[in-house]
Amino acid sequence: MSIKVYLAGPEVFLPNAREALDVKIALTRAAGLIPVSPGDFTIPPKPSKRELGHAISAIDEQMMDSADAIIANLTPYHGVSADTGTCYELGYMCAQGKFAYAYTNVAASLRERTIAHYDGDVVTDANGRLRSRRDGLAVEDMDMSDNLMMQGGVERRGGQMIVHAAAPERLYLDTTAFEQCLRLLAARAG
Amino acid sequence: MSIKVYLAGPEVFLPNAREALDVKIALTRAAGLIPVSPGDFTIPPKPSKRELGHAISAIDEQMMDSADAIIANLTPYHGVSADTGTCYELGYMCAQGKFAYAYTNVAASLRERTIAHYDGDVVTDANGRLRSRRDGLAVEDMDMSDNLMMQGGVERRGGQMIVHAAAPERLYLDTTAFEQCLRLLAARAG
Repeated sequence: MSIKVYLAGPEVFLPNAREALDVKIALTRAAGLIPVSPGDFTIPPKPSKRELGHAISAIDEQMMDSADAIIANLTPYHGVSADTGTCYELGYMCAQGKFAYAYTNVAASLRERTIAHYDGDVVTDANGRLRSRRDGLAVEDMDMSDNLMMQGGVERRGGQMIVHAAAPERLYLDTTAFEQCLRLLAARAG
Repeated sequence: MSIKVYLAGPEVFLPNAREALDVKIALTRAAGLIPVSPGDFTIPPKPSKRELGHAISAIDEQMMDSADAIIANLTPYHGVSADTGTCYELGYMCAQGKFAYAYTNVAASLRERTIAHYDGDVVTDANGRLRSRRDGLAVEDMDMSDNLMMQGGVERRGGQMIVHAAAPERLYLDTTAFEQCLRLLAARAG
């Protein structure tokens, strides 16, 4: 069977979004899978920004409902963690029992990135838990690339979280890890 | 009927997590709802951090599966946007068609927070879209408090995203917006 895979990630925010999405779409087809891409629609004008946001939300959810799998780009975005919209989408697909894979183009673990976010100003508390000395928040330390709900949700369903150290100037464009996800998904679904 | 509501948010990372969760649990009961709280379990020792993460992921998903509703604390965490685990959970519950409400204790919109993240170094591109001059990434501008998938997912399902400006020292402890979500959910489910 041919399976449809929803391509989740922050590429829609790139200046060359169309080009970046097209590269992923072509790679998906080359892997024998059917791409479903969040950039692939046009929306009639709406009376407000909020209503435009709702329209995009509705279309993206319809696309996910129509897909059999998700590959989520969890590369850090605007800081420590992944794009929040992509995280919502990964949870949305995991809840439906779809095939789920994820990747990140940053090699550092969530623990390492969180410590860097606090400029190393962390301390081990009385319970052995690492915490920021600035705001007291715990540093998640599960030997994972992002919050355990995402990586746990993927791995517990037989998927994988692929980690690849991309060059900084190719942070959102490097497709090495994405292609690995495609291969794993194609092999499993085939 | 009495409905079960999953209390999603980054409170588990607070130094006084147990206390903060207990406050939300008590408020939920006082609203006539049954709380399901991600801190309420003990996990036997695991051979690795990763396996501990998987165990927590499994329990949290079971809790969500058992619940009829979610109230997600989308207060910014570690930067511009909400806690990514909470975003996964909101998507997970929206996919199941559960009642969904969310709140944030920061009044600034996602647009305002993103511009601040870039220290105001943004410009309008040829298509009228606001972009960072540093990395070219678009500033999401949907008149919402976080990514459109989250707020769109909530509002399109008849829920609401409640915005409250908490004092900075009560950023993760102020329950004003949470209590408003409880009232809305109780009225709708009752």
